[in-house]
Amino acid sequence: MTSMSDTPVIEDTTIYTREILPVFTHAESTILSIIRKNQGASKVDLIRMTDYSRSKITGCINSLIEGGFIHTNGLSGNTGGRRSVIYTLHGNKGLVFGADIGATSIDLMITDLRGKRLARYEEPGLVKHGPRKILSRICVLFDRLMEENNLSERPVLAFGIGVPGPVDFKRGLVVSPPIMPGWDQFPIIPFINDHLPDTFVVVDNDVNIMALGESVQGIGIDKQNIIFVKIGTGIGAGIICEGKVYHGTAGCAGDIGHICVDNEEGPFCPCGNRGCLEVLAGGEAIARHAAEAVKNGTSEILKKYYDQRGGEIRAEDIGSAAREGDPVSIKIIRESGKVIGEVMAGLVNFYNPGMIVIGGGVSNLGNILLSSIHQAILKRSLPLATKDLPVVFSLLKEDAGVIGAINLALDVYLSMERVY
Amino acid sequence: MTSMSDTPVIEDTTIYTREILPVFTHAESTILSIIRKNQGASKVDLIRMTDYSRSKITGCINSLIEGGFIHTNGLSGNTGGRRSVIYTLHGNKGLVFGADIGATSIDLMITDLRGKRLARYEEPGLVKHGPRKILSRICVLFDRLMEENNLSERPVLAFGIGVPGPVDFKRGLVVSPPIMPGWDQFPIIPFINDHLPDTFVVVDNDVNIMALGESVQGIGIDKQNIIFVKIGTGIGAGIICEGKVYHGTAGCAGDIGHICVDNEEGPFCPCGNRGCLEVLAGGEAIARHAAEAVKNGTSEILKKYYDQRGGEIRAEDIGSAAREGDPVSIKIIRESGKVIGEVMAGLVNFYNPGMIVIGGGVSNLGNILLSSIHQAILKRSLPLATKDLPVVFSLLKEDAGVIGAINLALDVYLSMERVY
Repeated sequence: MTSMSDTPVIEDTTIYTREILPVFTHAESTILSIIRKNQGASKVDLIRMTDYSRSKITGCINSLIEGGFIHTNGLSGNTGGRRSVIYTLHGNKGLVFGADIGATSIDLMITDLRGKRLARYEEPGLVKHGPRKILSRICVLFDRLMEENNLSERPVLAFGIGVPGPVDFKRGLVVSPPIMPGWDQFPIIPFINDHLPDTFVVVDNDVNIMALGESVQGIGIDKQNIIFVKIGTGIGAGIICEGKVYHGTAGCAGDIGHICVDNEEGPFCPCGNRGCLEVLAGGEAIARHAAEAVKNGTSEILKKYYDQRGGEIRAEDIGSAAREGDPVSIKIIRESGKVIGEVMAGLVNFYNPGMIVIGGGVSNLGNILLSSIHQAILKRSLPLATKDLPVVFSLLKEDAGVIGAINLALDVYLSMERVY
Repeated sequence: MTSMSDTPVIEDTTIYTREILPVFTHAESTILSIIRKNQGASKVDLIRMTDYSRSKITGCINSLIEGGFIHTNGLSGNTGGRRSVIYTLHGNKGLVFGADIGATSIDLMITDLRGKRLARYEEPGLVKHGPRKILSRICVLFDRLMEENNLSERPVLAFGIGVPGPVDFKRGLVVSPPIMPGWDQFPIIPFINDHLPDTFVVVDNDVNIMALGESVQGIGIDKQNIIFVKIGTGIGAGIICEGKVYHGTAGCAGDIGHICVDNEEGPFCPCGNRGCLEVLAGGEAIARHAAEAVKNGTSEILKKYYDQRGGEIRAEDIGSAAREGDPVSIKIIRESGKVIGEVMAGLVNFYNPGMIVIGGGVSNLGNILLSSIHQAILKRSLPLATKDLPVVFSLLKEDAGVIGAINLALDVYLSMERVY
């Protein structure tokens, strides 16, 4: 006999963390979920929505209050009868950590159980320095952040971590990452638990947590199905399906950077194929096209940036040059947007999302990029799929990842049920 | 305050059918779902899985028995203590109808509430004759099937219908279908309810219900995420996400036939673009290539079929010719499989499914087609996404649609909750 499909199953992660999970009953986790989604609920609401008896609800509420997870937070509006007590998640129960590890940056945030921001910090950090150095640094930074914000006394309940590579979500492991030397199969969760033994830890891909961040607190807040496209050096997507991160069967859904665009004449990609989306339209491709323009002498403005950097050019320079009106840079950005949009058009036909969100470093190239992507999607997708399809930039920007990491940690932590 | 996300919301359909829905409480529908998924459950199972009290469970069970939805069906195994009573769905409660309307065929099935097959019928039928003619015919056929099988006394609880065109699932309407003259926005549900006033009706796209059929009773039974590709005259996909049909935001997910393969030199498609997958690799394209081979005199064997049909050639002839060893036909099939596989490779990178199922008329071209599709996917998808990815033919064949239609109807019918 199998368990109910709606019960979250985090199989192998529990090897590391079973002992530090709250052991909610099914009723308790249902109640927590309702209270969290609705930012508060009365007993009458809870009875109505769950179909549990008043005494059952009362029992669960008392147990959750005793555990410090919820508290009464005032009275609901007077709707003719008695005012009823509203239960909300408890802001003082404990802390939630979120870390977004980028290729060259570390973004950290601390919130309470309600997701309310208590501290935020970022600094440069090279993921290629390996997991021990980066994760130790993150632990040190969080200790300092707690101290500076007088939070050191409070327990850290859950910790969500995003990394710039493929993740086996169920096991919390990075798997064969292209740009993360030393991270392959590294036991991130036990490493963190050495420092924070009572903290529940989840690990996910950085684009997935960005997508979740935009979905719960960003521009996609009223959308159920979202494709978040991160355009940096590489290109990847995070998929929100019915409000949740969709990981795919092996945990690698959204890896769109190697979708084939030009099998015949496209440039070779480190993956071994030719004409991949990433190698044709990612940040490196944009910089490569710009370097060619400098070499061919077709753009004075790009030449200026090239010389300023001492013989190098970056994607952001093309953005600056385009804003100065450089037609070559505008053309490079348009071409990149068109290629990305053509791939997205296919994915729109397949997935029929309610929104496409563009983020990542290269998205700073601005509206020329966005409108080229949008145009290509409109041209090659079905009208029914595009007539209400916003194609927009990330709203949360650098915060998308950490906010997503925190929400992912909360999602899993608050819905973990007693294992029977 | 919004309702819980796991509660199914069938908004506008309820306009037509609210009065004939069973008004299950949340607890009752939860219990029904557990009993259905596990093909039976004891009170102890139900208490353990739902966290409802024994008296609550007893109350719900009594009410469901009284309604005729469940009954006791024997005792569970002796596990040391007392044997416990097992509750199962009631085979005699009423009937479920499934209809799969194809472009040129009508497939019908009757089952009981447990999905047990009681009758099956198929006949040719041209969808282009319009909804009144086709739907009336289906009603007549079902009446006859009931009579022939001594089922006329039993109420028809739910009716799932699949149609070969885009469907607005929430409203139960066909929307701008390319091959279904007269069906656009036709009120299918009220039309059926005129004949079967007490029956709950759902309508979905034919590929979606095929995908569901394979997922619940076919080759995908142990897979959570499936892409079902129907290759006929057109090409479309049905998406199973975490065990359920994924419809997309506007209800048109899976419409992969117009994904662009060759924007520059591909043939024009009736959709207005050029180089769509369908126009390059669908049944018509295969027949077109074969007709060219006949014209160019490159295939004696194809010429034979062409002459036999009096100057016409169909996709199935190319299959026969390939089986006879005709190299031209083998090449045409391989080329079609390669194009389909290249598009699927991109979708595999994006969606990371646990299985790809190939169905539809052209799939009869056999293993040459399947292996070409598989090869192209392996070549252009990420190793992590393909290492455990079966690419297989439909197991249920002509039954996939009706079985899916019945399961969809049951899914929705048994999970409808009282509207508060």
